[in-house]
Amino acid sequence: MEDAQGMDPAARADLAARVGRAVDGLAEDAAEMLRSLVRVPSLTGSEGAAQKVVAARMRTDGLETEVWEPDAADLAPYADHVTFHESYAGRPNVIGRLPGAGGGRSLILNAHIDTVETGDPSTWTHPPFSGDIVDGRLYGRGACDMKGGLVTHLIALAALRSAGYRPRGDVTVQSTISEEDGGAGALAAVLRGGGADGAIITEPTRLAVIVAQGGSLMFRLRVPGRSAHACVRDEGVSAIENFHVLHRALLAFEARRNASIDHPLYAPIANKVPVNIGVLRAGSWPSSVPEWLEAEGRAGLVPGEDLDAFRDLFRDEVAAAAATDPYLNEHPPAVEWFGGQFAPAEVPRDAPLARLLSGAHAAIVGDPPPIEAATYGADMRHFVRVGGIPCVMYGAGDVRVAHHADEHVSLADLATATKVIALAVADWCGVAEA
Amino acid sequence: MEDAQGMDPAARADLAARVGRAVDGLAEDAAEMLRSLVRVPSLTGSEGAAQKVVAARMRTDGLETEVWEPDAADLAPYADHVTFHESYAGRPNVIGRLPGAGGGRSLILNAHIDTVETGDPSTWTHPPFSGDIVDGRLYGRGACDMKGGLVTHLIALAALRSAGYRPRGDVTVQSTISEEDGGAGALAAVLRGGGADGAIITEPTRLAVIVAQGGSLMFRLRVPGRSAHACVRDEGVSAIENFHVLHRALLAFEARRNASIDHPLYAPIANKVPVNIGVLRAGSWPSSVPEWLEAEGRAGLVPGEDLDAFRDLFRDEVAAAAATDPYLNEHPPAVEWFGGQFAPAEVPRDAPLARLLSGAHAAIVGDPPPIEAATYGADMRHFVRVGGIPCVMYGAGDVRVAHHADEHVSLADLATATKVIALAVADWCGVAEA
Repeated sequence: MEDAQGMDPAARADLAARVGRAVDGLAEDAAEMLRSLVRVPSLTGSEGAAQKVVAARMRTDGLETEVWEPDAADLAPYADHVTFHESYAGRPNVIGRLPGAGGGRSLILNAHIDTVETGDPSTWTHPPFSGDIVDGRLYGRGACDMKGGLVTHLIALAALRSAGYRPRGDVTVQSTISEEDGGAGALAAVLRGGGADGAIITEPTRLAVIVAQGGSLMFRLRVPGRSAHACVRDEGVSAIENFHVLHRALLAFEARRNASIDHPLYAPIANKVPVNIGVLRAGSWPSSVPEWLEAEGRAGLVPGEDLDAFRDLFRDEVAAAAATDPYLNEHPPAVEWFGGQFAPAEVPRDAPLARLLSGAHAAIVGDPPPIEAATYGADMRHFVRVGGIPCVMYGAGDVRVAHHADEHVSLADLATATKVIALAVADWCGVAEA
Repeated sequence: MEDAQGMDPAARADLAARVGRAVDGLAEDAAEMLRSLVRVPSLTGSEGAAQKVVAARMRTDGLETEVWEPDAADLAPYADHVTFHESYAGRPNVIGRLPGAGGGRSLILNAHIDTVETGDPSTWTHPPFSGDIVDGRLYGRGACDMKGGLVTHLIALAALRSAGYRPRGDVTVQSTISEEDGGAGALAAVLRGGGADGAIITEPTRLAVIVAQGGSLMFRLRVPGRSAHACVRDEGVSAIENFHVLHRALLAFEARRNASIDHPLYAPIANKVPVNIGVLRAGSWPSSVPEWLEAEGRAGLVPGEDLDAFRDLFRDEVAAAAATDPYLNEHPPAVEWFGGQFAPAEVPRDAPLARLLSGAHAAIVGDPPPIEAATYGADMRHFVRVGGIPCVMYGAGDVRVAHHADEHVSLADLATATKVIALAVADWCGVAEA
């Protein structure tokens, strides 16, 4: 572990063992903290109540805790990259700082507190804000994406403390808002400065080290039609039938992109650049031909792709599909970009922080972790692209259950991730005996 | 004119001429009345304000005017046929009765006061509640469907009066509510009793005599999917893509029905039984695979078709389409019937009232009118099927502009329809000199 701060192997093995025991001893605390966080809804835009819980915990844990609302003026120059809100009143970031003993590298441990909506609660086996624990899994919206990640950070620091260690470098835990619609909270934290030598985001990576984050651009299609009374529907033009044409074209576009992308980290992923239509609204009356349709979705990018060039390509695809239809050729659909505009980002797969985190995982689990790319957008890009801070993602839970009914996290995996993060903190920042 | 009440040809020609001049003399009054009605929005469910205008006018015209709210309890047994509302408070029918001089047949002149919504107002050249008159057309929501029809009735009676005639049979003008969502208002009027020997509804028929009304059943499809984060969208199942399967099947079903229906009055109509999807809603987040979709539409029937048998057929079609899809086969979509459930209805094309109205049209216009079927549902069925009252439809305006941006009616056609209705009243009810 060339990146570890000069600890001898026996001391490090002893530290790993002591921290591991400390994490295991905090298992109930971790589960209870996660449950209490899941039980406070924190849909993007409504993070205030959950952040109060976070701030109280950080203070209890002895972190220098700051609660501050992002300033819209600071974010305005980046409005194209995050969902811009006129005000963040009632939506603070919460930052807990553990000043280092001195002489080590600094580290940011980031997690976002906001979650997506629940969808239809009746599709959940466990109510979305229950925090039910069944068979070692804790259920609820945000369980893995990513209140579990925030618990990972806080318990990791608590475990180091209770095991008798104090990091030498500064460690900053960030509970940031608005990740799901673009990451205004993390961006504001990066812009606020302070910086760090590295950052780890505990997104649910299934205990893989993620060094590349996909781009994800939210778009809206406005598809026109011509209204008519349904009794003479052939004299109208259905915006819904028009949309079918565009949807088929977008799925073909996605397939062509997947066949042509050759980023090595994305090679194992069948759908590297998903184009998803997530929301549809059309028409106003069952017995009228719908004259309008709005579709909202997201399109994926891989690192190395330029946002503006991709947007042009996407518009061209929509225009080409429209040109194949007599009505749409005369009445072209509109493409708008809105909300989260996640640029892709990556760090080298052998970046020091990635190698160090892999080493910590190997020390805890026994085998090295997968080094992977993600197809989702995340706050990683703000650290890498805006802050110039090496950033990787690593955490318990699976994105496959995020944004989904019955989102959950394995408490055993959460403990593993917590041990790995604690050891990574020690390796990266160095430790002094407390 | 065997159905006319024994008037000699010269007297009838004189009456037609005098009534025609009276209608022409009331052209400004008619345009102003229609404009004032268009300017008071009366979306289905919010008819109260417009009905006040109607009642005031009926009183001014000397009609015995009743304003009464339908009683939901009376309509409950018919809940499957009209959109059932728990209460009609603030949504009165307005009935204006002109007692006959004695010795003639009675006649109901019906028009509905409610309208559909405007759709996107920006798609209108003339604002939807403007009542703008340009090049002899009056524009606005309800201009032809069917505030114009109500004006036709009231001006027809005013013209008879000003020309010195009084009908021998009772004439009742009905301004009824809730036609667009199933006709609770007209049904309540029929159930209230009083009856009549015939009824004319001034729907916008382009001055054709309509003796057959299509059925129109509103349906809702609930189409399931399986949610997933968009970054792994292939692990979800899109309710939108599932809907495409069902929509294609419904369009094929419509085509097969059109090929097999052999009702002679519908032979000239290419799409006899339109299946329209008018409203779509799906998904909750652009970056999640949509797990739900709701589609609302209407399916058409021709007279002679049984509602329950058709509903079974429709369900079978949806089920058969779902069975072709691996996901829908396991997670079948639901079909619900809601809102307007318009049964088809017809009277013989040589029914006395149809022949009499044709004769009146021929006397005014010079040529006999087309005798046609309509593909839309209307209140006609309540008079025919529930009240046992022969009913036909005839009016100015075109259903092609109803439910549409820039709905309008030609004021010249409105005058023609008014003359025809006035003459038909005279022919049907007989007249005395006032």
